[in-house]
Amino acid sequence: MSNLYKSLKEAAYEANMEIPRQHLAIYTFGNVSAIDRAAGIVAIKPSGVPYTELRPENMVLVDLENNLVEGAQRPSSDTKTHLLLYRHFETIGGICHTHSTHAVAWAQAMRPIPNLGTTHADHLTAAVPVTDVMTDEMILGDYEHETGNQILDIFRKQNLSPQEVEMVLVACHGPFTWGKDAAKAVYNAAVLEELAKMASLTLQINPQTPPIKQTLISKHYFRKHGKDAYYGQEGY
Amino acid sequence: MSNLYKSLKEAAYEANMEIPRQHLAIYTFGNVSAIDRAAGIVAIKPSGVPYTELRPENMVLVDLENNLVEGAQRPSSDTKTHLLLYRHFETIGGICHTHSTHAVAWAQAMRPIPNLGTTHADHLTAAVPVTDVMTDEMILGDYEHETGNQILDIFRKQNLSPQEVEMVLVACHGPFTWGKDAAKAVYNAAVLEELAKMASLTLQINPQTPPIKQTLISKHYFRKHGKDAYYGQEGY
Amino acid sequence: MSNLYKSLKEAAYEANMEIPRQHLAIYTFGNVSAIDRAAGIVAIKPSGVPYTELRPENMVLVDLENNLVEGAQRPSSDTKTHLLLYRHFETIGGICHTHSTHAVAWAQAMRPIPNLGTTHADHLTAAVPVTDVMTDEMILGDYEHETGNQILDIFRKQNLSPQEVEMVLVACHGPFTWGKDAAKAVYNAAVLEELAKMASLTLQINPQTPPIKQTLISKHYFRKHGKDAYYGQEGY
Amino acid sequence: MSNLYKSLKEAAYEANMEIPRQHLAIYTFGNVSAIDRAAGIVAIKPSGVPYTELRPENMVLVDLENNLVEGAQRPSSDTKTHLLLYRHFETIGGICHTHSTHAVAWAQAMRPIPNLGTTHADHLTAAVPVTDVMTDEMILGDYEHETGNQILDIFRKQNLSPQEVEMVLVACHGPFTWGKDAAKAVYNAAVLEELAKMASLTLQINPQTPPIKQTLISKHYFRKHGKDAYYGQEGY
Repeated sequence: MSNLYKSLKEAAYEANMEIPRQHLAIYTFGNVSAIDRAAGIVAIKPSGVPYTELRPENMVLVDLENNLVEGAQRPSSDTKTHLLLYRHFETIGGICHTHSTHAVAWAQAMRPIPNLGTTHADHLTAAVPVTDVMTDEMILGDYEHETGNQILDIFRKQNLSPQEVEMVLVACHGPFTWGKDAAKAVYNAAVLEELAKMASLTLQINPQTPPIKQTLISKHYFRKHGKDAYYGQEGY
Repeated sequence: MSNLYKSLKEAAYEANMEIPRQHLAIYTFGNVSAIDRAAGIVAIKPSGVPYTELRPENMVLVDLENNLVEGAQRPSSDTKTHLLLYRHFETIGGICHTHSTHAVAWAQAMRPIPNLGTTHADHLTAAVPVTDVMTDEMILGDYEHETGNQILDIFRKQNLSPQEVEMVLVACHGPFTWGKDAAKAVYNAAVLEELAKMASLTLQINPQTPPIKQTLISKHYFRKHGKDAYYGQEGY
Repeated sequence: MSNLYKSLKEAAYEANMEIPRQHLAIYTFGNVSAIDRAAGIVAIKPSGVPYTELRPENMVLVDLENNLVEGAQRPSSDTKTHLLLYRHFETIGGICHTHSTHAVAWAQAMRPIPNLGTTHADHLTAAVPVTDVMTDEMILGDYEHETGNQILDIFRKQNLSPQEVEMVLVACHGPFTWGKDAAKAVYNAAVLEELAKMASLTLQINPQTPPIKQTLISKHYFRKHGKDAYYGQEGY
Repeated sequence: MSNLYKSLKEAAYEANMEIPRQHLAIYTFGNVSAIDRAAGIVAIKPSGVPYTELRPENMVLVDLENNLVEGAQRPSSDTKTHLLLYRHFETIGGICHTHSTHAVAWAQAMRPIPNLGTTHADHLTAAVPVTDVMTDEMILGDYEHETGNQILDIFRKQNLSPQEVEMVLVACHGPFTWGKDAAKAVYNAAVLEELAKMASLTLQINPQTPPIKQTLISKHYFRKHGKDAYYGQEGY
């Protein structure tokens, strides 16, 4: 492996390997990227390579304008979606895209995942948003770039913070998640899959289940996030 | 590891490690404690530490008034809930809290799990109770202490015995279980998850399924519990 | 291990260990027995012993009238159900009882599992029958013996052959399965769990799904069973 | 092992072993075949042999008219279905039949699996078709041959291409999948199971979910297939 951005490629590799370990996708589905903000360089999974054959040196390096920096293989076909998010969500360090079963079901159903309990509130302050369906013009145009635009659009419309809501469902497609680094992005993908499954099961038991109250959302979210957090240990 | 309450810390550690082994939570979710009744000392999981990094010496020791006795890390953020239960349920030796998927679904749906069969009756004599939703005052007050109060409240209202019903659902949140020791508390968490899944599947097949009759509940419960029990072996 | 019925105890042990391997029960739930027809001796799991601690020498030997022949531990609390079935279903060599999740759901819903496809027809010619609910008199009487009587009763009422239908659901309780030997009894328990899950999922997709036609049932069943079978190999 | 079609038998063996690895069937259920087009020879799983006992040398060789070429054991009872598909779908190199749980549920429900998202569109351009129910004459006639005829019939009626739609549900029975080789046929079986599960979960969340639009189907399908594909790497 070249020494160029070695630790960035290793971080992206390790995060990608969490996708099959956490059962978030089968075969080659899914991809994770990591960014070096100082350099403006992104390491991302090569397109269509099975996880069993993935190595740190396979990670493809591109800059934020999608120019190839290093890589013997094509980068993920979703690279332009990642890059648009990195350019607009300036605090994030990693992005994950999976086809995890229950999150995809909500994306296909075109329904936001309501906040029905503290497992959800521990991780985000709103329902998991779902984008609008793309127009034919967008699909026939620069498709992967427009996928990113749909995500930015729903965050603008709902006035959501990408720090407080680190996940989204692309309608008819599936989830994108992010975080301070690539490992956190995959963590959020696994959490989202669990929230999606819990919400489906809850509504099966009681279709009228209301979202939880705002006080409970704030209590749980700020128990774990921000300056008054008292969950967890320093340095985790 | 200091020798202070060494076996208590080991028992708490072993019970905590059963949570991922029984697939009762992902990442850092969940926590188990064990009490030394003679000493009035509780060993509990440190907050937010992944199970893969947990060691017996990480267990935090507190007394029943939540004074730190030993521990380099913060105890679980749910510690006050555990302590209130230990103070009022005087015969129990261990407590477990998880975010197991099907039990959380019932807690989020705010529905007690009805007693639909002998798997349930083998373990408890009533529906699995669900607490009331907390008031804003409780949430904004001493939240984890009030969580314990909600559990005590539903046991009082329904006149339940914490020896005959070793599990509860906290509304909008998830399950707490307990038992004669920490191992039994986690055993009950796994049983509860199974009962929750069975009940959902049963009501999907036949939404009108009635609870089983009292004679059958008593037959199965007292086959396994109390002086006339004839299930199992002496010493198990 | 004493040499008394050594191969019978080993066959019962191996079949019991298939229960956790096939994920048909958690902890100590479930039990399998094997019979030596010439001797009239049954080897059965000891009551309440975890599978991780089970050994061939733990198997308890009883005769068909429930007299203890050998064993340091109590036999399964369900022993009398097994013995009644052995006395009336004279061709069977092994019996299995589990609390497998989907089969229990149908038993709790008190609904027979309809024959919706060839996976079902490959194994039995009818819906999986469900017993009547027991009367209080039965429950308060010789409960485990009466459980067996309920099984015999539904087979008589529906004129079923225990050779063609090797499985039953006890209402409010769970499945019993059997076969030419203990291994086949557990195989049938795993097949039943799969049929139960498939039937639930099918009716969720199309609640009006009709049972398959009799010609298809006969085709698939007799492809695998009886003198004109052409599925499989000689000696399997 | 004889050297006759050694690599063909090994390819068929490896593909068959993927069935239990991908959890697509229990016990002996399911079978995969591979064809050598130049020779007109098919290697297929022997009937009813457990995967744990399967070896490359067990693969049975037959020609396209079902004459035995080599093999100590009976070929799969579904061999005639495979052969009819090989004769009519002239570009395919492997066929897989499983009883995977969710795909069987749709087959039993006699409903095509609608194209609800990009995971589906990445793999095929239409709903997964379901055959008509067989007539009694077909069932009582040359059953496995007629099963193949039902598949050909639905492809003709719906004007489907076996290159663009590499999967089908046989009504009341289960899935058949195929591809350029045996490995791809099993890959498609695993993808189908995932699509079937996603579709059930989607319709549970929103029973009115419409199929995705044709532009999105074409975009995703031709991102991965055909001369303008840009997903994946050369040579995968």
